[in-house]
Order: sequence, then C-alpha cells, then structure tokens
Amino acid sequence: MTKSSGRVTLPAEKGMEREILQLAQKWGIDAVRDSDGTQLSTEIVGMGFDVYSTLCLIREDNEWAKANRECLQQIYLMSQAVIAFENRIEIDIMKGYYREQFEIDTLHKPADWWEVTDRTTGETVDNTKWLFDSNTGKVILADAIKWHKYTVTFLAYQIWEPVSMYNHKTNNWKEEHRLPVDPRHPQARKHLLEVLEHWLEAHSQTGIVRFTTFFYNFDLIYNENGKERQVDWFGYLSCVSPLAIQQFEKEYGYRLMPEDFADKGYYNSPFKVPDRKYLDWMDFNQRFIAGFAKECVDMVHKAGKKAIMFLGDHWAGTEPYGKYFGEIGLDAVVGAAGDGVTTRMISDIPVKATEARFYPYFFPDVFHEGGDPVKESLEVWRKSRRALLRKPTNRMGYGGYLSLVAGFKDFVDHIADVCDEFRAIHDRTKGTKPYSAKFKVAVLNAWGVCRSWMTHQVAHSLWNQRCYSYLGILEALSGLPFEVEFISFDDIRNNGISRDTGVIINAGDAGTAWSGGEHWKDEKIVSAVREWVYGGGGFIGVGEPTACEYNGAFFQLSDVLGVQKEAGFSVNSNKPSFSINDSHFITADVREPMDYGEGMNSIYKYCESAEILDVNNLSCSLAVNAYGRGRAVYMAGLPFSMQNTRMLYRAIFWSAGREAEMQIWFSENSEVECAAYPGAGCYAAANSSFERQKTTILKADGEKHIVELAPLECKWFEI
Amino acid sequence: MTKSSGRVTLPAEKGMEREILQLAQKWGIDAVRDSDGTQLSTEIVGMGFDVYSTLCLIREDNEWAKANRECLQQIYLMSQAVIAFENRIEIDIMKGYYREQFEIDTLHKPADWWEVTDRTTGETVDNTKWLFDSNTGKVILADAIKWHKYTVTFLAYQIWEPVSMYNHKTNNWKEEHRLPVDPRHPQARKHLLEVLEHWLEAHSQTGIVRFTTFFYNFDLIYNENGKERQVDWFGYLSCVSPLAIQQFEKEYGYRLMPEDFADKGYYNSPFKVPDRKYLDWMDFNQRFIAGFAKECVDMVHKAGKKAIMFLGDHWAGTEPYGKYFGEIGLDAVVGAAGDGVTTRMISDIPVKATEARFYPYFFPDVFHEGGDPVKESLEVWRKSRRALLRKPTNRMGYGGYLSLVAGFKDFVDHIADVCDEFRAIHDRTKGTKPYSAKFKVAVLNAWGVCRSWMTHQVAHSLWNQRCYSYLGILEALSGLPFEVEFISFDDIRNNGISRDTGVIINAGDAGTAWSGGEHWKDEKIVSAVREWVYGGGGFIGVGEPTACEYNGAFFQLSDVLGVQKEAGFSVNSNKPSFSINDSHFITADVREPMDYGEGMNSIYKYCESAEILDVNNLSCSLAVNAYGRGRAVYMAGLPFSMQNTRMLYRAIFWSAGREAEMQIWFSENSEVECAAYPGAGCYAAANSSFERQKTTILKADGEKHIVELAPLECKWFEI
Repeated sequence: MTKSSGRVTLPAEKGMEREILQLAQKWGIDAVRDSDGTQLSTEIVGMGFDVYSTLCLIREDNEWAKANRECLQQIYLMSQAVIAFENRIEIDIMKGYYREQFEIDTLHKPADWWEVTDRTTGETVDNTKWLFDSNTGKVILADAIKWHKYTVTFLAYQIWEPVSMYNHKTNNWKEEHRLPVDPRHPQARKHLLEVLEHWLEAHSQTGIVRFTTFFYNFDLIYNENGKERQVDWFGYLSCVSPLAIQQFEKEYGYRLMPEDFADKGYYNSPFKVPDRKYLDWMDFNQRFIAGFAKECVDMVHKAGKKAIMFLGDHWAGTEPYGKYFGEIGLDAVVGAAGDGVTTRMISDIPVKATEARFYPYFFPDVFHEGGDPVKESLEVWRKSRRALLRKPTNRMGYGGYLSLVAGFKDFVDHIADVCDEFRAIHDRTKGTKPYSAKFKVAVLNAWGVCRSWMTHQVAHSLWNQRCYSYLGILEALSGLPFEVEFISFDDIRNNGISRDTGVIINAGDAGTAWSGGEHWKDEKIVSAVREWVYGGGGFIGVGEPTACEYNGAFFQLSDVLGVQKEAGFSVNSNKPSFSINDSHFITADVREPMDYGEGMNSIYKYCESAEILDVNNLSCSLAVNAYGRGRAVYMAGLPFSMQNTRMLYRAIFWSAGREAEMQIWFSENSEVECAAYPGAGCYAAANSSFERQKTTILKADGEKHIVELAPLECKWFEI
Repeated sequence: MTKSSGRVTLPAEKGMEREILQLAQKWGIDAVRDSDGTQLSTEIVGMGFDVYSTLCLIREDNEWAKANRECLQQIYLMSQAVIAFENRIEIDIMKGYYREQFEIDTLHKPADWWEVTDRTTGETVDNTKWLFDSNTGKVILADAIKWHKYTVTFLAYQIWEPVSMYNHKTNNWKEEHRLPVDPRHPQARKHLLEVLEHWLEAHSQTGIVRFTTFFYNFDLIYNENGKERQVDWFGYLSCVSPLAIQQFEKEYGYRLMPEDFADKGYYNSPFKVPDRKYLDWMDFNQRFIAGFAKECVDMVHKAGKKAIMFLGDHWAGTEPYGKYFGEIGLDAVVGAAGDGVTTRMISDIPVKATEARFYPYFFPDVFHEGGDPVKESLEVWRKSRRALLRKPTNRMGYGGYLSLVAGFKDFVDHIADVCDEFRAIHDRTKGTKPYSAKFKVAVLNAWGVCRSWMTHQVAHSLWNQRCYSYLGILEALSGLPFEVEFISFDDIRNNGISRDTGVIINAGDAGTAWSGGEHWKDEKIVSAVREWVYGGGGFIGVGEPTACEYNGAFFQLSDVLGVQKEAGFSVNSNKPSFSINDSHFITADVREPMDYGEGMNSIYKYCESAEILDVNNLSCSLAVNAYGRGRAVYMAGLPFSMQNTRMLYRAIFWSAGREAEMQIWFSENSEVECAAYPGAGCYAAANSSFERQKTTILKADGEKHIVELAPLECKWFEI
C-alpha cells in the first residue's frame, strides 16, 4: 500500500530525531514545529520539513517585563461579595484569586480606578467612604449599611501569563513565571517590535512564524488554590488598563467604569446579551489589536516568512469572524479542534489557509500509564471528520511532547490512519465544495457572525451544563449538508432576512445571548421573523427560543412555534389537550429513546395548528406548527448524537417545506452520512458510529447504493 | 358498641326519608340540608334535625333577573390574540368563550369601555381606530400594523351563573339557566333584600341559612365547547361593571382600565405579585361585599336563624382571612375539604364555628357503577385527619345527592367510621389545643395572611403542574405540630419579623407571588431577613426562593441559603465542588428515594459553609447552611408524602436550631404521627399510610410507647 503524504504538522522535540523520521514516513509529515517548552535541534530543522516556530511576543522577554512592571497587562477583578454584619467591614479583595497570577495595582490610585458597589441597591459607594489598606490588602468601609452586600472591583496586574501558567501547572514546569506585557503602552509596543526583529534574525531557518497568538489572552482566572476559577474564551478582560480606558474615553466620549468590566460579576460573558458599551469596548480593542498585529505580520513577511496565528490563547480581539481580521494579513490560522464545532470554527475562517490541531495533545494528562489516547482521538475524529467532509482545514497536526507518544504504538498506527483519511478528503474532493441543500440555515442570536461556531461555548470543546443541550445543534450542523450562517438581531434590523435563507434556528435559555433576551421585545424583530416565516420560511426553536416575558407572553413567537411556556402566572388556564403524533416526517428515523439533554418544563400546546410529537414530564418536548406558507419546529433540547443529528436534518428540510429534496445523497441509516462532491465526481459514506453499519445511499439520480462500513469507516466512491 | 352522635350534616333529599333515618343512626347525623337541586320534604324537616337551607340570593329570582338584564353581573374578557397578517383585521371577540355563559355587553359603548391592545408594543389602540360590528360580533381594525398581535378586552354580561352552570353540566340538568344579579346596582340590592325577606318568611322551619355564598363567584370561565377554560378560586372578575368602575374612580381618584382586569391575559391570577391597583380593587370590593353581606346576615339573625357561609362558589371578596370578614357577623363557615390544606383553610378561619364538607360529593362522577367512593374518601380522610388533629372543624358533612349513595354499602360503613373518628377528636381533646413547638412557622409570600392555606392553588384541592411540588409543604404543615402563620413582604416592611417566629418558609417559582418576585429587590426585605436569620432564625427555601435576577444574583439571599441558581450568565465560572453529606439530621428518616416533584436545575453550592445533602441532574436538591446564629435549608421541591413531611418536620426543627426539642410527642416511624393534648390528658397516634405500621412514640417525659396500628388507624391513649 502506498502511503499518501503531506498536510500534517508534527510537534518536534530535540532528542527525538530518529522517531521524527519514522513518523514522517508513517504519518506523512511535511512540517515540524516547536512548542511552548520544546526546542528544535539543528538536525531537525535541517530535515527538509517546513519549520513552524512558535512566538508569543508578549511573554518573550521576561527581563524587560520585570524591569517595566508598569507595562504589564492588567485586569479588573471583582472581590468576593461581603455582607455587612457590622457597619464597619473589611473586604479582602484578593480572596478567591490566585496571588501568583495577580497582584493588586497600587500604582494607580484606588479612589480613581476602583469601585466599591453596594450589591443590594446596585449603587456605587462614594470613594470618600472607603479606604484601601495596602498592608492588609483589604478595603475598609466604615459606614456600610448593615445587611447590605458589598463588592470591590479593583485593578490588578497580571504577574503570570495565563497560558504559560496553565502549561506550567499541567506539565510541572519549574521555570521562572513569565509576565505578560501590554503593547498598548508605547514603550512596550516599541520593545515588542524590537523583540520581533531580533527574533526574525535569529530564526533564519524558520519558514513559518506561528504567533501564540498576538497579545491578550482570553479570560483565564485561577482561584486561591491555583485552580481554574473562571474561563471565557471570548473575553476581553486582559485588554484593560487605565491607559486603554483613557484612550477609549477620548475616542468614544465616555468613560468606562470598573463596573462596566465587572458587570455584576458576570464579566460580560458571551452568554449575556452584549450592551452598547461592551460592543464599543470590543471594537476599540479589535482595531488596536488588528493594527498592531498587522505591523508584526508585515515584518514577518518582509523577512520572507509566513505568518500564522493560533486560534485560542492570546487571540482576544483578533476575532477571526470580525470586521478587522482581514486587515492583519495572515497566511493561515491554526486552532485546536476537539469536535465538529471547533473544526468548523477553524475551517470556516476567511483566511488563506487553516490547520486543525486535533486533540488529544501529547500531554501527560492523557499520555500516561493506563491512559487511552486512541479512544480520546477516536471520539474527536468521529466528530471532526464530519466537519472536514463539509469544509476541510488545509492542514492538520498535533501538539505537545513527541517524547510522550513513544510508548503508545497503537496510537501511532491510529494517527497514521487519521492522516491518510485527512489527506484523502483533499485528494478526492480536489478543493470542490460538497453538495448542499439549495437554501441556507441561519443561526440567530445576539452575536451573529462574530461568534460563528462559537455559541453556547465556554472554551474549547468542553462539556458544560446548560450548554450541551444546545451545542448539539451546532455539532450536528457542522457535518450536515447545509450552508450555515450566523446572524444577529441587528442583521435582521438592518438588512432583514436574506432571500437565500431557508431556515432560522434560535436556541438557548431564556435571557441568554443565544436565545436573544430583550431583543425579542423589539417589534421590528418579531415582525420580521413572523413575516418571513409566514411567507414560507422555516423556524426551529430549541429550549427557550424567542423567550422574554413581555406583554403577556413568554415565547414572543408562540404563534409561530405553536407552543408556549407556562411561566407560572397562568397555571389556572387550561391548556389545549392533544394527542401525540408519533409518525411525523421529522421523527421517521428515531429508533432509540429521544434525548433532549437537560430538557424543558411546562411547554404547552399554544396553537390549534400545532402538532405535538413528544411529551416528557407533561411538557411538550417536540412540536411542529404550520404558519402561513411557513413552518416551525420546537425542540426541548438537542444534545449531539447521530439520532438527534438526523432529527435536526429532517426538521430543517421539513420546516423549509422541502422534504422532497432531502433524499439526495442521503443515507437511510442515520449512523452513516454521505458527502457528495459533484465537481470532483465522488462521494464519501462515513460511519460515525463505533459499530459496523449497513446503509443504502440514495444518489442524486435516485439510484440506490448499498454500503457496508466497519466501525468509524469512511469509504469513497465515484459518482 | 355504642355509637357516638352529632356534628354531622347530611345532604337530604325528598323521597329518601327511610334512608335518612337509617343513616342518622349509623352516621350520627344531627343536621340535614338541601342542595342546589334537591328539596327537603315536610317529613324530613320534621325529623328533629337541625335544618340548613341553602340560599344563593343572586340567582334566586330568575324572573326578575330576566326582566332586569342591565343588572346582571358582568366580566371583562380578553379576546384571542390575533396576528395582523393584513392591515385590516377582524377579531371574533367571543372566540374561545362559551356563548351560553357570556353575552357581549352592547349597552355600554365599546369605545368607552373596551380596549384594543397592540400586544407587540403593549400600547392601547386609539378607540377611533377600531369598530365593533354587533352583527358579526367582531372588532374591525382598518389600520393594524402588519405582524403585530392584537387583543380586544371587552365587557360581557354573565348569562349563566357559573356554579349553577357547573352543576347543570355535571348532573345533566335540563332546567332553565339561572342568571346572576349584581347587587351593586341599587335596584338589584333592594330586590335581593326583598327576596331574602320573603325567603326567610317562607322557610320558618329552617334554623340555619347557608349562603352560597354571597354575591360574586370566583372566576370560572368556560370555553366555546362548554368546558372549563380558566378558573381562579381567588379571582374578582365577576365584581366588575361600569358602575363599580365609576364608584371606584370616585373613591380612589383614578379609573381602572380594561387592561387592569385583563392584565395581559393573566387576569391578576394569585400566582402574580399583586400590584397596587389590584389590591385597591380587591379592597374596594371587599368593603362593599362585607357591608351588604352583613345586612343580609343581620336580617337572618333578626328572623331568629343562624347565618353560615359556604367557602367557595360566590365567596369572591368575602376573604375569610381578610380585614372585613369579621364585620359580616357569620355564625359559621362551611367549606369543601379535599386534603389537609383545604381542611385547615376552613378550620383556621376566625369565626364562631366551621364545618368541613368532605370529598367526594355524592355526584354521579364518582357514584356510578365501577366507581370507588371509599377509595376517594380514604385519600381525603388520611390527609384531612392530620389537619383535624391540629385544628378540627366543629362539624363535618357531605354534599350531593343522597339517592346516589344507596348502592354503596361499603361507603356507608366507611363513612360511619369517619364520623366516629371525627367526633372522637372532639370528645377526646375537649376543645384543647394540641402540643406545638415553642415557635411559629411563617410562610412568606406576596399575599400573606389574606391567602392563608391558599398558596399554590388554583381551586379546591386539584392537582396542578408547577403547584404540587410546593403545595406539599402546606399539606405537610397542615398536620405538623407547629403554629403556622402566613406573612407578606409588607408585614416585614411594616412590622419586621415577629419574635415568636422560629422559621420562615419561602417557596415557589421565580417571579410568582409565592416566591415574591420583585419584592426581593427591596433592600428592606433582604436586610430584615438576613438580620433575622443571622440572629438565630431558620429559613427554608423551596424551589426558587428569594429569586429575582438583580444586581448579579438570582437567589437574592444565596448567602443565607448557601446555594445559588445558575441563570445562564455565569456558566463559565466554576462552581465550588463538594461531597454529599448523606447523614444529616434532616434526612435521618429517609427510607425511600427522595421526591422533589418537578424539581430544579442548575442549583449550585454558593457558600463554603453550605452542606449539600442531595444532588440530581448535577443540581443540588437539598442543602443546608449556617448563617450567623441562624440556619437555612434549601429544597428543590416538596410534593406531599409522609417521608417529605418528616423531612420538613426535621428541617424546621433543625433550621430553628432546636433539634433537641423535636422528640416530644414524636413517632419514630414517619408514617405515623402523634398529636398530644396535654390539656385533655390524651394523645393520638395516627397512621396515615395504607399499610400496617408499628412505631415508638416518644412522650413529653421521654417515656417510650410502642404502638401498632392497622392501615389508616388512629388510636387514642391517655398521657
């Protein structure tokens, strides 16, 4: 069997030269890279592979950082909440935070830059009424109102760059803590450019500079025990400084207060509907970051090298789906992929090339005695492959320490298969697009395109309560034959709903950015969606769609959805009775018990026209409704599974009123999916299950093709 | 065996004279009564029993009502919501309502008395922009805003008195529909007094006039198919009329608008936190109703008879726990009892005497071939007896048609036992109070004393979604050895928390009147409760206690409760980990799997001091916390069962910090409870289960008494 080759990046490591050459053969490697914590030997660099060198500018020169502590990155932290059991209270502001990560900022006057808030009334306490005692690290209020709750929002310096801290702790490093420098300070900016210039000179054999990433890390805050306390992959907390606030005020005409960052302790998490101030703050930073990143990228290009960025880590403000991303001028983006959603998050970025670094990382948390990296990899691959068949990244790779892989021969063999499968997608499809339905599917939330493939996520592909029941929708979509777009309420307000959109999906808990919260009070939004569905559009609501208690309704579009949620005020009104329709188009492939994840309570039939397909705990879990020429589907939740993926697939075609168009390149068995590439004259049948599967593929011309597949097998055929 | 006798009222019926005498012997009857639909014969009246005669003044003289249709009772109804698919829309305002129950009011100008509302914006549509077409019964809007939702709130006349309608339909009556007269009209008031006068003259042998009840029925609205559409036992919808609104305006200085009654379609259900206007409206009607009821009662007394009122039916505004109830001067209240809660709702009324009419009614819905009235009665009795042992009604009885009972000999025997057990309570306890804990338990909600034993209820003892998980608390309390009080947020604002309160219970869904909604934004409330618990009080929160998303918290008193609910905005913050404490004082008697009813999601440990006792679906279901010298307990829900009753019992003593005082007149087996009457020198051990039980009773002096009880048996002992 001749092995294919290329498109794969290996994390190399001094001392592993022999293994690298063996793997180059086995995995078809054409590029090597260093990592945070590993170095490439001259021998490796000379092996003829493309060489990626990792560069994280803001932590590169620790000596300079130590000598210029006023240029360190900062953060606003909200202290623990303290109840005033007495009139005099003391708040230990660092309680709950990691003292090795943060240091209270005493350079800037607390009275000017901090805020003490009465969280019982919501009022800011006058800054003459409290004092910070730098000896104890406590804020003292002498006239607190008894039984009220108080917090202090204070500025701190970041004294341990958080990704370095994470790696340090995960890998038991003993090296000096690295400090993150804030390029907003002119002297820091100047220094970082000098660092880059020297670095480029020193790395003459490096063809590709991989920025990790640019400047500000996503919010990663550790607790007093040095464990993760909160994380927000999309946060902008590290961008803050008095300087940034002053520059912002000059540009926008208003000053951001500490509370604008602390945000009652929610820190503007993406689960909240963003307010104008926060959107301004994001835009302000995006422009700065894109501008300075472009300057860096230009230097890399001038040195005759390529510049790529790592998605994750210090990517705050780069916003790959944002307005300014294109200006940076990157050659590629590489990102960590743990499922179909994160794979699409990378592969859909509008950039010249993309690379997925698949989980698991070669880290001791998985590669230890008794660890099962093959199992971890298969779980990732079965999801990511679905996404790649829709939109492949240009390259793939792994991260971590190659030395750890040595003892896992089955893993080495397994990855050889993965690499071959990955390359096969490119070889077969020849860059052509897969067959898609003739309409687009739009995911509607408060963020729109900016959070493409990023909804209901905290970070990476981690499982989270209140998320997994919704994230399954994106996971399903990542591999389904639809063009997916992410639209915001502002998009609808400004541009209406595009003509080529066939189905809108609105999914999330009431009040969150994903469902939309108060946006649903806007008559422009409800009118636009009603009009569009009535005219023939499809609307799929999951969980608490269109939800906002207002004017006597909880789901604002209960007339469209056909169901309503009893919010507790009308339990004394009888709800229409119904019988369950258990033979609907949507549920035709259901074999296993339905799974709605966390599910919903108290969903009742609202319209006579609605049909209820499933009920749990006296609450409608699945319902469909006709609305004018359009249709709507309600689902209580949709965690990822192949059965749920099929249900969504059917729900999309049904709500679009295009059931007849579904059975094109269609696999009758839901565990298998078909991706067809008419432009390349081929199609794939991929088994996403861990069992052997047999299925009939219905081709575009209606011809049937029976296929048998081993567990997780993907077979290619000519059309 | 000598049978006891007395305290029992029988629904008698012409033609059943022989059976009445037999039952008088068997059940110990000392009073007979007629019903809506039955008459007493001269023979029955002469049997020597007390005679109750039912009188429902407002439907007594149907001829007068038919001749004075402008004096009929009215109602505001909100039409179906109609989406404007075109600019011109027509709303069939009676759609969804029962045309035999309501007739559109065309006497009063729609433009003056109705309201068309844009439910998309919440705005009232100018009354020049719509027209009512009395030929079609439709409201026409020519300039509706497309895709907006519209409703019409219109005045209707009640053309079928709702209880009569209910009985008519339940019993297949064929008689003429009875019309309800509104005594607010001076001529109606005058006429009703004349009716009463004639009636009193005609019923010389009646000793007791049982008003059914006074004037306005609770909200009972049927749908277009003549089935129940909505019901609110505590509603005031039937009190409305243009006259009432005008009188109200004169007194209160502002006019109530149709929307104040329709209330977005929620019709001011008691599940909503009442606003000032609605409280004014209630007060306005209560004063009128108490005043006119007193006039009627005075006439009855003048005729040498007693006046009693039926709790239920036309009891709107009588408010047995309200400010004006005492003024009416009643001799007794009789009410339907289906469980412990409704039994206590009757027995606790501050009136000279009370009577419980136990379910099942002798109606064909239960007394038919294959029906099992004994089973129904046992379910009621096992719950009601617990309540009676705490606070007995003075009398008991049944309702319906005696003729239906004839075929159910086992039922006749069973009721003989019930009557004996009922009388035994009085005979044994001699009017003394049962032993109670040394502190009071307060149920805190937006209604307070006015809705004593009426929380989380739609009507009667009916099971309702979103209610049963909370109603179990009251059901448990109805038979537990505590003095129970119902307090409102205003009580706390005005008077603080009384010194003799040991435990406060706050239970309900977020936003409802039972949880308290926006009352929890008031710093006075949260401060008062914090201070009180901190000083040693006990706080039990069930479901979504103290809930109102505000200032960064969902449970406002998460510091007291020790737990918080993740409302969706901070899923990216890690929650404290914990281990489950499975050997706590509160759960010491748990044997069966825990049951929290509908339960809760996303409840997490908030305070370090909190201990988690149970977790379901990753959400804390049971937790305890220490707060200063006080304690708090959180429960996800508490449907009624003896196990849950015991858990609440323990939670109350634990949170009050008085565990040591629990084992006084304590039954070790949770299925059995002990009620002791030190003043009468006796105690009862009651088995509330359908199985044989053995238990040890711990007496006040610590002495142990082993008792064995047959299923549902209650045994009495001397102290």
